[in-house]
Amino acid sequence: MGSVEKLPHPFDPLIPGEIEAAISVVKKAHGDVHFNVVTLHEPRKAEMKAWLAAPESAPRPKRIADVVVIAPGGGVYDGLVDLAGPTITYWGLLDGEQPIITMEELQLVEHIVRKDPGVIEQCRLSGIPAEDMHKVYCDPWTIGYDERFGNAVRLQQAFMYYRPDVDSCQYQYPLDFCPIYDADKQQIIAIDIPKVRRPLSKEPPVDYHPAAVNARGGYRDNLKPINITQPEGVSFQLSGRTITWQNWSFHIGFSYREGIVLHDVTFADKGVVRPLFYRLSLAEMVVPYGNPEHPHQRKHALDQGEYGAGYMANSLSLGCDCKGSIHYLDAHFPTRAGGVRTIKNAICIHEEDSGILFKHNDFRDDSVIVTRGRKLVIQQVFTAANYEYVVAWQFHQDGTIQPEIKLTGILNTYAMDPDEDTKGWGTQVFPGVNAHNHQHLFCLRANPNIDGEGNTVYVTDAVASDAPVGSEENFYGNAFYNKRTKLATTGEAKTDYNGATSRTWEVCNPNKLNPISRKPVSYKLVSREVAGLLPKEGSLVWKRAAFARHAVHVTKYRDDQLWPAGRHVPQTSGEPSKGLPEWIGDGTESIDNTDVVLWHTWGLTHFPAPEDFPVMPAEPMTLLLRPRNFFTGNPVMDVPPSYASTPSQVAAGNKGVLNAADSLSRLAFGNATGGSCCAT
Amino acid sequence: MGSVEKLPHPFDPLIPGEIEAAISVVKKAHGDVHFNVVTLHEPRKAEMKAWLAAPESAPRPKRIADVVVIAPGGGVYDGLVDLAGPTITYWGLLDGEQPIITMEELQLVEHIVRKDPGVIEQCRLSGIPAEDMHKVYCDPWTIGYDERFGNAVRLQQAFMYYRPDVDSCQYQYPLDFCPIYDADKQQIIAIDIPKVRRPLSKEPPVDYHPAAVNARGGYRDNLKPINITQPEGVSFQLSGRTITWQNWSFHIGFSYREGIVLHDVTFADKGVVRPLFYRLSLAEMVVPYGNPEHPHQRKHALDQGEYGAGYMANSLSLGCDCKGSIHYLDAHFPTRAGGVRTIKNAICIHEEDSGILFKHNDFRDDSVIVTRGRKLVIQQVFTAANYEYVVAWQFHQDGTIQPEIKLTGILNTYAMDPDEDTKGWGTQVFPGVNAHNHQHLFCLRANPNIDGEGNTVYVTDAVASDAPVGSEENFYGNAFYNKRTKLATTGEAKTDYNGATSRTWEVCNPNKLNPISRKPVSYKLVSREVAGLLPKEGSLVWKRAAFARHAVHVTKYRDDQLWPAGRHVPQTSGEPSKGLPEWIGDGTESIDNTDVVLWHTWGLTHFPAPEDFPVMPAEPMTLLLRPRNFFTGNPVMDVPPSYASTPSQVAAGNKGVLNAADSLSRLAFGNATGGSCCAT
Ligand SMILES: [Co+2]
Ligand SMILES: [Co+2]
Repeated sequence: MGSVEKLPHPFDPLIPGEIEAAISVVKKAHGDVHFNVVTLHEPRKAEMKAWLAAPESAPRPKRIADVVVIAPGGGVYDGLVDLAGPTITYWGLLDGEQPIITMEELQLVEHIVRKDPGVIEQCRLSGIPAEDMHKVYCDPWTIGYDERFGNAVRLQQAFMYYRPDVDSCQYQYPLDFCPIYDADKQQIIAIDIPKVRRPLSKEPPVDYHPAAVNARGGYRDNLKPINITQPEGVSFQLSGRTITWQNWSFHIGFSYREGIVLHDVTFADKGVVRPLFYRLSLAEMVVPYGNPEHPHQRKHALDQGEYGAGYMANSLSLGCDCKGSIHYLDAHFPTRAGGVRTIKNAICIHEEDSGILFKHNDFRDDSVIVTRGRKLVIQQVFTAANYEYVVAWQFHQDGTIQPEIKLTGILNTYAMDPDEDTKGWGTQVFPGVNAHNHQHLFCLRANPNIDGEGNTVYVTDAVASDAPVGSEENFYGNAFYNKRTKLATTGEAKTDYNGATSRTWEVCNPNKLNPISRKPVSYKLVSREVAGLLPKEGSLVWKRAAFARHAVHVTKYRDDQLWPAGRHVPQTSGEPSKGLPEWIGDGTESIDNTDVVLWHTWGLTHFPAPEDFPVMPAEPMTLLLRPRNFFTGNPVMDVPPSYASTPSQVAAGNKGVLNAADSLSRLAFGNATGGSCCAT
Repeated sequence: MGSVEKLPHPFDPLIPGEIEAAISVVKKAHGDVHFNVVTLHEPRKAEMKAWLAAPESAPRPKRIADVVVIAPGGGVYDGLVDLAGPTITYWGLLDGEQPIITMEELQLVEHIVRKDPGVIEQCRLSGIPAEDMHKVYCDPWTIGYDERFGNAVRLQQAFMYYRPDVDSCQYQYPLDFCPIYDADKQQIIAIDIPKVRRPLSKEPPVDYHPAAVNARGGYRDNLKPINITQPEGVSFQLSGRTITWQNWSFHIGFSYREGIVLHDVTFADKGVVRPLFYRLSLAEMVVPYGNPEHPHQRKHALDQGEYGAGYMANSLSLGCDCKGSIHYLDAHFPTRAGGVRTIKNAICIHEEDSGILFKHNDFRDDSVIVTRGRKLVIQQVFTAANYEYVVAWQFHQDGTIQPEIKLTGILNTYAMDPDEDTKGWGTQVFPGVNAHNHQHLFCLRANPNIDGEGNTVYVTDAVASDAPVGSEENFYGNAFYNKRTKLATTGEAKTDYNGATSRTWEVCNPNKLNPISRKPVSYKLVSREVAGLLPKEGSLVWKRAAFARHAVHVTKYRDDQLWPAGRHVPQTSGEPSKGLPEWIGDGTESIDNTDVVLWHTWGLTHFPAPEDFPVMPAEPMTLLLRPRNFFTGNPVMDVPPSYASTPSQVAAGNKGVLNAADSLSRLAFGNATGGSCCAT
């Protein structure tokens, strides 16, 4: 208002100037600390809702930076900076909590291990001479939690590998020992060494770089190009970071922690803007490994809380990660020393043809309507050491939201002897390489406002009637129905998946009935890739990643309850469990007809196989948030059809039919078959 | 060999000349019968395997027509015609069996009901005057099984609708009574009339034809074109109906019954052709409805056995059903009177970009490889009265086969009074329109020959170790593994889905161990959309559609055991159950290391909602057949990357990197962001 410059939207991630301002005021007050986090402290929801309802008259929510630093000596501080000053409005020392591990911290470890005499000795024992230490690499991971060390000292564990050549695939020569790194001292403080040693493999490499592929016979040359172009431009608009497309509107944020964050998701239904979700994100994940032998139990990355899906984001590139007509958004983060790091093209946005949207053909006369669909994709890729995760938020014209995650990258690997028995805890995926069983479990966080305030979650099961065959109510035995069970309290809402009943969860607004079906308006969570947490009750993973104990939890909304494994995740012991269990407490809180948050853990169990090596073909997993009883009719009936003929037109020799078939489509072999659209 | 003309491949569907030849010899011998089926009698597998192994020297399997006719008076005959003569080699009268219902039989019913005095009277009672009978339509369905009539007489039930205008959507004005049609007499022999009558709805129509949409405000105009072109042609080749693409090879058949049938599916692994499936198809389906009130229990279409996914196939059109560079195959069927009916473009074949195939980024230096994937799609669409099913067999470069079915079209609807309680058995989707709960269950039939002869099926579950937390074997409680249970007999093989263990089924070749993992080579069935059959044990549907009782059945291969609900499906009583239960018998037959057939029933339960009306946005369901321990490494490492840089190249300022990014991709808004691929 006062400024000629356009102010950032209250949901916008901090812009570089804001990051710099926050850093500057913190440095002035607290000296040369290491900056782990300088991020948007999201507006209080009550204030934000008031502003969204009346941006011209309501007070504009303040821009606040949420700051986490490590002081020399290892002290960890949480702080808040009001950027209007800028002024530090909160500063507090933490006790026994470790903040997120930055890329810079990770990158440092390799340099330390290479010089550590203990590591050099272990390498020598493995068969690597001291002069080859530059060929030794490590993937530093958070230590998870190791009871020998607790969480007062900031630690990482280093998974060790050997690269015979700088360009070699690292994961084919794993070493069998595991140094533990003290991040404050920048020293190796222990090395976990297995009882049975496994010397460095001498297997010839299976590298995947072009020179290696060419040496093995080269690339296949039988793929003809597929060109995807939008000569008239794209069908979406952006105003700042708010996108509109096909009745959808939402704000696209990006956090160091969750990566893509969507706010204020609405759908314009015949011109009436109807709210759906105040906030949507993937809020946490955990990748537990299933080998019980020490120290492999420590492998259970909570990648978002421990490293950050934003911090690990790839810089995407046109024609590689995305194809067609693409819009990119950059991401800005602090460096440890207090600069600004920019990830160019951290988010890509594009449309895709999605095949037949709807079709009906009358069997009497072949009168037909066929309409093609379109989706909007908001995508990022992040690299968690060995793994790549391709996260795509897909929006369909019919009101469906479909997050999809593709898993690719490289397996975390461990050494094995040629005749070693993996005991069922892993698979030899390459000679000398044991890839352990693991799970990829993601936690979707949805703060719905389906058609406005006051939402309730039901679990819904497809079940047969109780009445037996031959009874009056169910004489032929065919009766079945949608059994709805209200989740009235946070305790009741701890629910598991049930494949036998095709279980779904329904987020409904009990205050709004669909005038046609007379059922509450709702969005349904349809999720079928729902592996339960396999680490047992009482296990370290079960304690630390409590969100994964059930497929669904529901809590009452509170500001700042964003991340279900807690705010600071590295080195939590799980005693007590942070995040969701704290918020749920004794489970008696009502979540009926109020502001609720749905937490859904989904994912898959990965038993590695040789086809996953050296790089895994992408494996997708997906779920749907579908409108059910939300609209009074199919909301895509006004999408222009490719072809539409009516019985009267067919009777008149197809006179007057609507023919808007894609005129660039061609017959593959240019023969006589085919011809004009739908001329059957 | 002897002929200059190219002979049909033994797997090819009958060509028009063969259909004509078979009809001609049958007519000569048996007079003017009605032809329900004239189709390829598939070669005996033993002969066919011998020929496939040595096509130059082994005897070429004979071309045989499988014929089903209805003689005047209703006698049903099965016959075989050796097309070399042509000579009738088998002819047999059936007792109490009804053959598939043809489109011509279906189309006839409407003309009969319009003239039937009883129907006219019921229409009058509903509020339709006799002079408007041309506005009365019916969807004739098989009667399923009605104990009042049995199966000696060929029957259909007629679901009645009113169209105020010839171009109106039929399903918005359902009528409440149900005539029963005798196909031999061509007469209505009974009318099922509910106790409570529901007069014709007076609701204004919600038509979906262009004139109606335009009258309601017109089409949205904010979709910019997406062009998909292959200027250098497609990457697949066809020789006859045998396709080769990206190491895949298979024969594409098409039957009146199953639609697309794939034979002799192989994958060339580093030049070695490895067999995967002798035959793959969707062999049957059932759509049970969940309203127990008479006569709705009769609604449970076994669409493939009762009408045929081939007979109901749509003629597809360029730029509508399929976009890009497409190849089409036609289908040829007999007419009832003994002619040939051709469905032009019954199958479409095309390639699609499928996003990132694999990617890995080194977090140390952002050296990266990113490769885009491609899929091959073999697609058909069939219309089962109100519903459309889009069946796409998708082949991925990594050896995965992914059948996908999209459900679209229109709900089967029934009349309801304005204040009627649907009692949970259905939903009011439009005023006066009750859409009943139903399931869409499909039976995938796979006759595997994974890496050759002798296959065994295992059920595999992701489970935690039995050892408790704190025990020596599982101290930290994180142990989990892939539990494999051999299905040794047909009885043991009756298995259900278990979502809690992410259950999969593994078809393996116990005679071939993967040299790396030392596990049997296998293909894994990963299927997550697996609704169990909701009609109860002992119900009519349970008896008639026995294949749907379990997610998986396995039988020993026998010629002609193709369709799991039996050869002739209409009007079966289910006493005894046909097809699978007959073949499984007492369940003691060994299916270990032999020629096995895997039957997998999958699908979803559909509780209708207003968004499904008047036409449903397509809802996809899919499954994967994935190679696991089949290859010795990732089989797509030789797919050319879009971009690849190595650490040494990054260190040298990206000198020498492989940059083959799609050069036609563009920035959406043509601003300064972006630029050349992967130049981060
Ligand atoms: Co994995
Ligand atoms: Co349906």
